Formats: sequence, structure tokens, C-alpha cells
Amino acid sequence: MSFVVGVDFGTLSGRAVVVRVGDGAEMGSAVHTYANGVVDRTLNDRPLPPDWALQVPSDYLEVLKNAVPAAVGNAGVDPRDVIGLATDFTACTVLPTLEDGTPLCDLEQFKDNPHAYVKLWKHHAAQPQADRITELAAKRGEPWLRRFGGMISSEWELAKALQVLEDDPQVWAATRYWVEAADWIVWRLSGVYVRNACTAGYKGQFVDGHYPSADYLGGLNPDFSDFAESKLDVPIGQLGQAAGTLTAEAAAWTGLHTGVVVAVGNVDAHVSAPPAQAVNPGQLMMIMGTSTCHVMSSDVLREVPGMCGVVEGGIVPGLWGYEAGQSGVGDIFGWFVENGVPDSYGGSTDEKHRRLSELAARQPVGGHGLMALDWHSGNRSPLVDHELSGVILGQTLATRAEDIYRALVEATAYGTRLIIETFRDAGVPVTELIVTGGLQKNPLIMQIYADVVRMPINVLDSDQGPALGSALHAAVAAGAYPDIRAAAAAMGRAIRDAWLPDDADADRYDALYAEYRTLVDHFGRHGNDVMRRLRKLRRQAWGREALA
Amino acid sequence: MSFVVGVDFGTLSGRAVVVRVGDGAEMGSAVHTYANGVVDRTLNDRPLPPDWALQVPSDYLEVLKNAVPAAVGNAGVDPRDVIGLATDFTACTVLPTLEDGTPLCDLEQFKDNPHAYVKLWKHHAAQPQADRITELAAKRGEPWLRRFGGMISSEWELAKALQVLEDDPQVWAATRYWVEAADWIVWRLSGVYVRNACTAGYKGQFVDGHYPSADYLGGLNPDFSDFAESKLDVPIGQLGQAAGTLTAEAAAWTGLHTGVVVAVGNVDAHVSAPPAQAVNPGQLMMIMGTSTCHVMSSDVLREVPGMCGVVEGGIVPGLWGYEAGQSGVGDIFGWFVENGVPDSYGGSTDEKHRRLSELAARQPVGGHGLMALDWHSGNRSPLVDHELSGVILGQTLATRAEDIYRALVEATAYGTRLIIETFRDAGVPVTELIVTGGLQKNPLIMQIYADVVRMPINVLDSDQGPALGSALHAAVAAGAYPDIRAAAAAMGRAIRDAWLPDDADADRYDALYAEYRTLVDHFGRHGNDVMRRLRKLRRQAWGREALA
Repeated sequence: MSFVVGVDFGTLSGRAVVVRVGDGAEMGSAVHTYANGVVDRTLNDRPLPPDWALQVPSDYLEVLKNAVPAAVGNAGVDPRDVIGLATDFTACTVLPTLEDGTPLCDLEQFKDNPHAYVKLWKHHAAQPQADRITELAAKRGEPWLRRFGGMISSEWELAKALQVLEDDPQVWAATRYWVEAADWIVWRLSGVYVRNACTAGYKGQFVDGHYPSADYLGGLNPDFSDFAESKLDVPIGQLGQAAGTLTAEAAAWTGLHTGVVVAVGNVDAHVSAPPAQAVNPGQLMMIMGTSTCHVMSSDVLREVPGMCGVVEGGIVPGLWGYEAGQSGVGDIFGWFVENGVPDSYGGSTDEKHRRLSELAARQPVGGHGLMALDWHSGNRSPLVDHELSGVILGQTLATRAEDIYRALVEATAYGTRLIIETFRDAGVPVTELIVTGGLQKNPLIMQIYADVVRMPINVLDSDQGPALGSALHAAVAAGAYPDIRAAAAAMGRAIRDAWLPDDADADRYDALYAEYRTLVDHFGRHGNDVMRRLRKLRRQAWGREALA
Repeated sequence: MSFVVGVDFGTLSGRAVVVRVGDGAEMGSAVHTYANGVVDRTLNDRPLPPDWALQVPSDYLEVLKNAVPAAVGNAGVDPRDVIGLATDFTACTVLPTLEDGTPLCDLEQFKDNPHAYVKLWKHHAAQPQADRITELAAKRGEPWLRRFGGMISSEWELAKALQVLEDDPQVWAATRYWVEAADWIVWRLSGVYVRNACTAGYKGQFVDGHYPSADYLGGLNPDFSDFAESKLDVPIGQLGQAAGTLTAEAAAWTGLHTGVVVAVGNVDAHVSAPPAQAVNPGQLMMIMGTSTCHVMSSDVLREVPGMCGVVEGGIVPGLWGYEAGQSGVGDIFGWFVENGVPDSYGGSTDEKHRRLSELAARQPVGGHGLMALDWHSGNRSPLVDHELSGVILGQTLATRAEDIYRALVEATAYGTRLIIETFRDAGVPVTELIVTGGLQKNPLIMQIYADVVRMPINVLDSDQGPALGSALHAAVAAGAYPDIRAAAAAMGRAIRDAWLPDDADADRYDALYAEYRTLVDHFGRHGNDVMRRLRKLRRQAWGREALA
């Protein structure tokens, strides 16, 4: 009997799970919360500008030292029976290091430089750089731009790196490597620095074997021209490959032995597809939480408008991995419950969620007379426009909180249908839908999604999709299975047809979805750019205020 | 020293005020709540259909018996010094009576017939009749239709009468007169049935000396052809004229003497203009409460799109009286506070209103990034479309309740500006703005209105505009002043320039108002009829539900 360990590094904590290689049974797990969490207000008592979000790399090591041994202990397995360990990470979460992987922020001389720290995925302060990156690529007709829906995000490696170069040349000069945390943790575990194909592709614009050219990079800033060549150029590892085995130091941290195989890194969303058996073309995996990430493999390469990216082997080696996303889903519901619901619905936000779901579920489709646009955090796919904002239309004096709650849920379901139709129209059909993440526990949400998209929904039968996914990759890396597909068949588990569409309700949603589409085109595709103008007026208003 | 009594009959209660004739000083007042209030759920334990709203006429007499003597008592004046009494009423609030004015609902045989009772202004169950009334008038090119913005409301006399005829022929056969409550109360007081020019014109379509023709009425229903001739045709009295003096019975009710002059009836909104000294062309009076009523006199007759009506002598004899309205104002704010605000803003709705106003007032113009449409109760002027509904656009996860509160207030201010511009564009310029009603006490609201419309705002310096207005009309009817204008000069009181626009904020609001106009045109003028379709789907949804 052998076991593997999966470790999922989230935004606020890391979670380890011990899994039986033979059938994927979860034997035990443990969570360790980062001591420094998200550093977004002050660093060593000095204020950070708006839109910054940093992390402290030693917090990640504490997860290895605490959560892994605790999970093995909870599982009641003999550490000698553990054959592999794999990790997944938020992305793009990235840091500057020395030649040996030491984070610059660990050096005494840089401990007060914010740019020496990990930039978390939601660090959004590099937007000016991102704008220039997209603009120059479009102007030069860089062919790789099409692989990313025509837009390079401020969240990704290039923009975050360029911000360091331009804002803190000293830190930049000391940077030997610009490292995804997903790879840094593997480096700490195995002593080997290998870049995983997933983040290299989606977040680093590594396309068809090349990064953006020195010529292009130099056009952004002359000092940036050697960025890819000097700071990124390390071997690429495919998902499910072994990076190495545990170093003696890492074995001591984790309580495991130095024979344990360490897999190349992975991303929390993408790693979740195999445990849900979503490894074949057309199987769309939706990781539904505060936002929704959509990942799907395909055997064809197409340009899908507004996708986050398409990467060869980005999810499963040998297939094209597509990624799309909805920037706001659960956090829109959370925002509404926190800010727009009287306490008569419940004393806590949990109670309010429950009560609203209960009342909303009793309504017939179309009964509230509302239509919402789910753009409170902008629209990632397919419009790639974060200047967009939310809408609720159709209120009367009879409108109640449960009506708005249901309308918001429906709006996110329409948003999902729009993404599915965009894939289909681009020649990448979606044939199956699999859901994981926190929202799968809400029956109201799941039934509305099934009805709106007119497809059965399978769900991953686990609360810890990413950690389970990492464990599965560990088993492949350790050689227990020939490839990810075989591991998925043996260790994965989906509840098929967990939610089935109701035909009559689906027909009614067709009419409502048509209204959603019309509003999307009007407000999202320059029928009326009022949202962009309101944002501009808002920025001007507070700018005036700041000056006054 | 002489005094007059004004009695304002509202939706839930009646209020009497005793006023000194020489200077309009309010000497004392009293309120009496209707025992039966609004009868809209059950009548004598039998359920009423949706959209019904009835009242019981004896409740009005109780106001005369209680509030009037109490007000005179509070005022500390000698009843012998009272020279006149006048009343104002909600409208169109209408009832069927016998030859002597006895309400049919007072007869034993009709006490369980809902159609025998007073139909309150907000009885909306005659919409099918109203639709036919407008349609036939348009088809026949009836010239009077233009005086009412091209649309006859389900709230008015014709629709409510036709509903009785078609739903309860027995009640209809027993009906000698179809009487506005505004005139019925004067009849009870003076023994004289005279129709006031205001309700006859605005609510009874009495235009240029004629009601709609028998030919037209017969086209609606053959049995309706003699409606005007047989059930409405009584003398018309001008506002401020005497109807008669108190009968012995009414003198006993009120504790006054039979020499007291009783003025012809009036409407709560229109009667409020003279006490605010809004009696000259171009002075727009806004009565701001749950909804807003706009009344303005003019020396020109024009067709103003979407006005409720223009009536000769409708406000002041000798001038054209224009009426327009916003169906939802204070009740939109109330709805939001009741249904969309967490209790962290306050334990009571009053506290929430206060806190939200306070927080919203601190924001710079445009700071919330939102835009709302104030159509939660549809749009009365200028679109005359009650299938429209509310919109809020621009939400982000940073949007808070105070932002939405402010956006809703602003939307109603934009709605007012749109009405003012519609008057101006039709050749009826608005040169002055005077506000009365409950909302005038909220500084946030008043300042936003001044900034949005770019005009100073005068306010009526009294909490009881309508009752004070009635008192003023009583003084004219009793001969203390030669006409309403003279009485307004002596007894009225406006605080001039109570609120002044801030030029810089007004400039900023110009940009926001342009966005409002664009959305009005799009959603209100058939750019996208989504609101109408959502209502239809909503009705279908609940219809299915009722059948299931």
C-alpha cells in the first residue's frame, strides 16, 4: 500500500492531503494558515500604495513544516509508504531570487523594499505596464498575443517584472531569477529549479518554445530586452513529470524520506481537472469560488475571443489547455449579502446566504422580473474588460433581497453560458461540464447553472479538489501510473449528472438569456460606454477630493 | 380678527388647521386617522382582488366631527370668528351616490358590493378599461386626448366608472351621481353639489366646457354613452369660489356656525401652490413625498409630452394649470432602506435614512460611479409608462449602501430635470422652483436637486402645505381677499433661495445627467424594451405558478 501527498497553496493558507495511490482515497489532511497572510496595507509598518498585494515566502515553508507532517499523522499512514509529493499554487504569484533561489526579501538589505517580496496573483499595481505590454504587442503584430485573447494581464509575469525594473532598479539589478512561486516551492523541496509548462505558458507567455523576443521586450524598456534570456530561461517541465526527490532538508521539514519523488509545479485551477476526470477534449472544468476559472483540454488549436490563454500541455501533456474565467462569482453574492441585505434575513452572513437561497429557490423562473450583469469585478472572459461594472435592472417596490440574490446567481450562470458559446463558436465545443469549488454545495446555484446552460453537471466528489489533484500528479511523477489520464481513471471521482436541467425551466431561461446577451452587447461592446465613463468620473471625483 | 379652517383629506387621515386671515399664521391643528384606512385586502371579510383600493366615506365625516373642533380648540380662537372653511382631497378618489349624495355603500343592500364604495386614487384595477379608453380616443382622434399627454390613466373617473358598469351593473344602475370625494365632502358641508374645475378637468376630462362625447363613450360600451350627461353633469365651480355656507348639520359636526362660507373642493397637490406663492406663470411647485407632483400655471396653452394634464383654471382661475408627476420618489428611498440596507446602518428605518444621508453627503459628485433610473413605480412624466422599472448600473464590490442611496436620490433629481426640460422644450418655460412636502427636510436631497436642475429652490415654510392652501382658499371664498393671488401675497410664505446650486457640482452633474438621458432614451423609448418583456415573463411565471 503506497501513498502520495498533495499540497495546495492558496491565498491565505496551505492545505496538505494524504491520498492512497491505488484508489485516490483521502486518508487525512491538515491546513496551515500563513502568518503574514496577504500583505496589502503596510510592509514593516510602512504603508503600501493601493492595489498592492504581497506575500512572504517563508510562510510557504511553514506549510511544509506543519501541514504535511500533520496530514500524514492524521492519515495514520507510515511516512515510509509515501512515494510522491506534488504542489499547486495560486498564479501568477511570482518573486525575485538569487542564483540559489533565496528570495531577495530574505536579504537584510532588501527587507524593507516591497518589490523584493512575492507579488501575489491579485497584485494589480502593474496596470500601466500591462497596458503598454498589450499595446506594443498589438502594434507589432506579435503572433503570441492571439493565444491570450489579445490581452496581457497586469497579473502576469511580464507586467509584474517590468514594474520592478522601472520602480526599483536596485532590486531588479539583484534579481537573478524571476520565479513563479509554483516553481519556487518545488525548487525548495527538490533542490531543482524547473519551470512548469502551465505557468510558463499562461503567465509567462512561453509560446511554441519561445518567450517574447528581446526586440519586443526592449521596445517596452531598453533595460528589459534581456529579461527572458537572463531571468526566465530554465528548463520546462511537463505536468506530472518528476522534478527530483526530496532534499535532506525538505525531508526533515516534512517528516518524509529523501526517496519521495517531487513533481513539477502546477496551478490550483488546472490541477483540479484530473481528479474530476476532466482530462479529455470537450470536458470543461469549472472551479467555482469567489471567482470561476474554466479549464478545458482540446486536440485543436483555435483562437477563442477573450480566453485567458491556450497552452500546449497546459492541463494535460499532449493536449491544448484552454483557460477562461469569470472575475466575480461567489464574491458578488458575498458582497450583496454583506452590503445589501437587512438583518431580518439572519444574524450572520451564513444565515443570510441560507435564507436567501431558500426563498429564491421557491420562485418560478422569471418570477422576479430582474436581469443583472455580473460585472462587479469587470469581465474577464469573453470581454477582457475590467472597466465594466455591475447592473441590476427591473426593480419595483415589490423587489426583495431574495429576488436580487437569485438574479445575481442567474447572471453568473448566463456569464458561464456565454463563455461556453464563445468556445463553441470558435470551434472548440464543450461537451461536458464538471464543477468543483465551494459553490457546488449550494443547490440553488447548481440547479440554475444546469438549467441555464442546458447541460447536466458532474461534480468532483471532494472538498479539496486542488490538493487531491496535486496528489494525483504526485502518483504519476512517482511512476505509479503511466500518465495523468490513467491516474485520473483510477484516483479521480466525479458524481455524474449530479444536477440535471429541467427542460421547461431551460426553455424559460432561453428567453432570459437572450435579454442578457442584448445587454452584454450594448454595455460591453461599445453600444453605450457609460460604465467606462462613470469609472473615469469616479476617479476624477476622488482625485479632486484628494487634492482638496 | 378673523380665521379660516383648512381641511386636508389624505390617504390615511385628515388634518385640520386654523389660520389667521390677516397674515396666514397657523393658530392650531389636529389630525384624525380614518378608522378603515385603505381597504385593499378584504371588505367585510371577503377578499378583494389585487390592485383594489377602497375607502369608507363615513371616515371622512369623522374628520369633520373630530379634527375640526380639535383644531379650533387648539388654536384657542372663538368659533364665531371663523369666516370660512375649505377642503382638499386626494384625487381621483371617487364614489357612486344617490340623488341626495348618499353613498351607495351606506345602503344595506350594497354594503357587501366593493363597487359601491369609494375608489381611492390608487385603485389600479381598471387598467383594462383605461387601455380601451386611450386606444379608442387615439383611434378617433379625440382632440381632448392631447390635453392629457396622450394617455388616460386607470386612476381617473372614466376608467373607474366603466369598471363599475361592466363588473357590477346593479350598482351602476343605482348610481345617480359619480362624485369626486373632493366635491362630495363640500356637498356634505354645504348641501350644494358643485364640481370643482380642478378634478373635473384633470380627472374627468372636462375640456373646453365639454366632457367626452356620447358617441365616443358609447364606443367604449353602449351602456356608457350617457355617462357624462346623466352622472356628471352638475355646475362647475372655480377654485376659491364659495359653494355655500355650512348646513346646520355640518355646523353641529364642526362646532362652527352656519354663516361659515364653504369653498368649492380642491386637490391636495394643486391647493399647495398658492400658500407657497406659486401662482404666476413659470413658477413650478413640487410636492415631494412618496411621489412627486409638479403643478405650474401658465398663460400659454401648449402640448407638453407626458404631462398628466393641462386644465384651464386648474390651479388658479384665469391661467392654464399644468400637472406632471414622478410616480416614485420618497417611496423608492423608503423601499431601498427597508429592503436593501444592513442593520449596521441603524436599528430603525429612520436611523438608516439619517446615517445613509450623512455618509452620502460626504461624497464628491460622481464619487460612487453609479447611475440609476428612478422607474421602480414606472414613469409618469414624461414617458407615461408603468411597465418600466428601476435600474442601477455601475456597481463594484466596493459599492456600499450609501452609494446606492445617493444614486437613487440623484436619479429622481434627474427625473425632475427631465420634466423641467420637457416643459421648456414644449414652450412652457420654468423660471422658478418651489418645493413642499416631507422630503424638503432632507438637506442631502434638496442640495442634490438644486445642483442637478441648476436652479435655486424656494420652499414653503410650513409642514402642512395642503391644509394651509385650503385655508387660503377659504379666505378667498369668504371674501377676505379679492382673489387667490392677493391671498397668496398676504397669507403665503416661501423661503426664497433656501437651497442654491453649487456651480462646480452642477457642471459635474451635467455630465452625469447626459448619461441618464441616454439610458432614458434607450430603455424608455424603445431602444431596448427589455423592461416590458421582463414584466411579461414575470406575469407569465406567476400565472403558471398559480395554475400549478
